[in-house]
Amino acid sequence: MIAEADLLDRTFHALSDSNRRAIVVRLSRGPASVSELAEPLAISLPAVSQHLDVLRSSGIVSSEKTGRVRTCRLEATPMKTVEQWIAANREMWEGHLNRIGDVLDQTYGGTE
Amino acid sequence: MIAEADLLDRTFHALSDSNRRAIVVRLSRGPASVSELAEPLAISLPAVSQHLDVLRSSGIVSSEKTGRVRTCRLEATPMKTVEQWIAANREMWEGHLNRIGDVLDQTYGGTE
Repeated sequence: MIAEADLLDRTFHALSDSNRRAIVVRLSRGPASVSELAEPLAISLPAVSQHLDVLRSSGIVSSEKTGRVRTCRLEATPMKTVEQWIAANREMWEGHLNRIGDVLDQTYGGTE
Repeated sequence: MIAEADLLDRTFHALSDSNRRAIVVRLSRGPASVSELAEPLAISLPAVSQHLDVLRSSGIVSSEKTGRVRTCRLEATPMKTVEQWIAANREMWEGHLNRIGDVLDQTYGGTE
């Protein structure tokens, strides 16, 4: 199991490239073979394999080989961990903004 | 203005490091000076500055210098863009899983 900090490092890194995000978007509609994933992308098959390695190392994508076809699928946990991290920060941040709002209300006594 | 794909690239990259995430967590509680940000981190001040450069280039953090003190603050837009991207994908992914569930229900005619 990857520790949470390491999982966040790898997942954020995996998502920092538009081709890798395009692969994730495609896989969120359902599993796909490597050649299906490569087809809409304007990059070589080896480049697609490299991107898939990065996605696999973060755990976002898993793959299984049957005969000559490697099928990739999305795994929910890493994306969920990232989403929860961002949401927790947003809540803290919005709490901070609310407290500023309260201070301004108390200082200026208005709602404007 | 940074195009959305570029903003996502930069924001995901900015968040792919645990020290930069620690800075974001600290700033979500309110603005802080560079030395306040550096204090809890076990890295040098130049390293903190480099991390802040990465965070600034994504727009997550803005800063303002008054006299000798540079104050950093969190900006909501990049984090919101990343959060929306992940949520949109999760919805697509959950929709896919629901459709699989429907197919299984139709095939096996049960709720188990």
